[in-house]
Amino acid sequence: MSDHTRAQRPEAAPFTERTPRVVAARRLTRRPGRDRAEQFLAEGAQAVREALVWSAAGRGRVHELFVTDTAAERNRSIVDSALEAGVRINAITDKAAAGLSETVTPQGLLAVCDPVDVPLETALRGTPRLVAVLHGVTDPGNAGTVVRVADATGADAVIFAGDTVDPHNGKCVRASTGSVFHLPIARARDAAEVFEACRTAGLALVAADGYATDDLDTADQRGDLAHPTAWVFGSEAHGLPDTVIADLDTSLKVPIYGAAESLNLATAAAVCLYASAKALRRKD
Amino acid sequence: MSDHTRAQRPEAAPFTERTPRVVAARRLTRRPGRDRAEQFLAEGAQAVREALVWSAAGRGRVHELFVTDTAAERNRSIVDSALEAGVRINAITDKAAAGLSETVTPQGLLAVCDPVDVPLETALRGTPRLVAVLHGVTDPGNAGTVVRVADATGADAVIFAGDTVDPHNGKCVRASTGSVFHLPIARARDAAEVFEACRTAGLALVAADGYATDDLDTADQRGDLAHPTAWVFGSEAHGLPDTVIADLDTSLKVPIYGAAESLNLATAAAVCLYASAKALRRKD
Repeated sequence: MSDHTRAQRPEAAPFTERTPRVVAARRLTRRPGRDRAEQFLAEGAQAVREALVWSAAGRGRVHELFVTDTAAERNRSIVDSALEAGVRINAITDKAAAGLSETVTPQGLLAVCDPVDVPLETALRGTPRLVAVLHGVTDPGNAGTVVRVADATGADAVIFAGDTVDPHNGKCVRASTGSVFHLPIARARDAAEVFEACRTAGLALVAADGYATDDLDTADQRGDLAHPTAWVFGSEAHGLPDTVIADLDTSLKVPIYGAAESLNLATAAAVCLYASAKALRRKD
Repeated sequence: MSDHTRAQRPEAAPFTERTPRVVAARRLTRRPGRDRAEQFLAEGAQAVREALVWSAAGRGRVHELFVTDTAAERNRSIVDSALEAGVRINAITDKAAAGLSETVTPQGLLAVCDPVDVPLETALRGTPRLVAVLHGVTDPGNAGTVVRVADATGADAVIFAGDTVDPHNGKCVRASTGSVFHLPIARARDAAEVFEACRTAGLALVAADGYATDDLDTADQRGDLAHPTAWVFGSEAHGLPDTVIADLDTSLKVPIYGAAESLNLATAAAVCLYASAKALRRKD
């Protein structure tokens, strides 16, 4: 570590859970606090590393880091690159870290970031070929896992539509393992607006629906999956409302070859998005 | 409801958390208790319904049901079919139900069941074509989700190998959404024994490994996936140990087309098992 970075390290006692900066950051663990401050917390080495890369690419700002002594020792290169980027580093106590954490085992390392979401038109600009739309997904872990899967399949964007969870929820950020910083994410309460924007972008709107007549294999054989597609996924408990399904171009189910009734949201999304990604690549 | 079934309903006050039968059942929420009693708890309407079907098929016994008044009202047909099968029904208080539950929102309906696992040779008998082996998977939710996915893909069996979680763990049973009752499940501490048994059954042993050179698409194009396969999945945190990978026939990764570093266990398993299931069906 250079003298320069060492000199910037806080020498004073670490912030506690009562220090105003920590109290302010703690408000970001709840949606109203995030909405008011227009900031969110990214926790853990992977998320903070990806946040710094995202910030360096000019896609948003990392405002400050909170880090315990132990976490600073363990993640020197991350803290150093934050210092080099001019990000303020706040030393915190373990108890302060626990208060900022939304996990059972606090990581001791958090970044205060600008929101990752972009306007719908920005997320869909150019000629997107594969997009995931979440509609009424309320479990943040599921939503984050779908963002991770969408990122893995090279999707162009993920849209959080209707009453879907906040992508900046700590559990969502964590489940995405950094993917919220990788691909464009947009939010829109009005699902009809999302579907309209997808159509304008040349995407076919396909409902993932366990009750659909057609399945993924049949659609693949017909060549339907090689068309630019926005997959629409509903809530784990209730799937997509019939009124939403009726608004889309088609519905497909993942074929069930055994006795299971259905798949969960994230595994179904993985199978659907990989089938499309593969079909689109075959066409290239 | 017939008079016959109504007559068998307990008229006495419901069991509390201190009633010996409830105290005994509560021990089944922990592995030592399950191992000692050789019984486990299936919670919720879906799991209990599947347990009763499994029992009616002669695959194991459902010993008794615990049910709150509210849950009995909501699940009359399940309670009735349990009574018809001669299963003892114990009315319990909400507090007793909470003590037996491993979930945040107790379902108020639980069945005490024989273990679902069968000997390794039984699970692999005949000519299995698709098997999932879990090695060192410690998160019960992940393990249960893989059982659900394996069931959906029509897999012949799931083997819990090495230091993998107990398939009868409440979170595993719940995540499987009844699938633990659908397909043969075997447990074996000695992974080498599992691999040997898979080879004897004519299965190719394939490691799901994010660091593999070959990917699923390449293997599919070569026709490798149309061969009877035992997929081996490692822990979410560490994957498979190198020593295990070296013991297997080959390693494949799920291709990552975007910026994500990896997939989580359940989504990777979904993509791998569906790719094999599809290739095996194409061959038919």
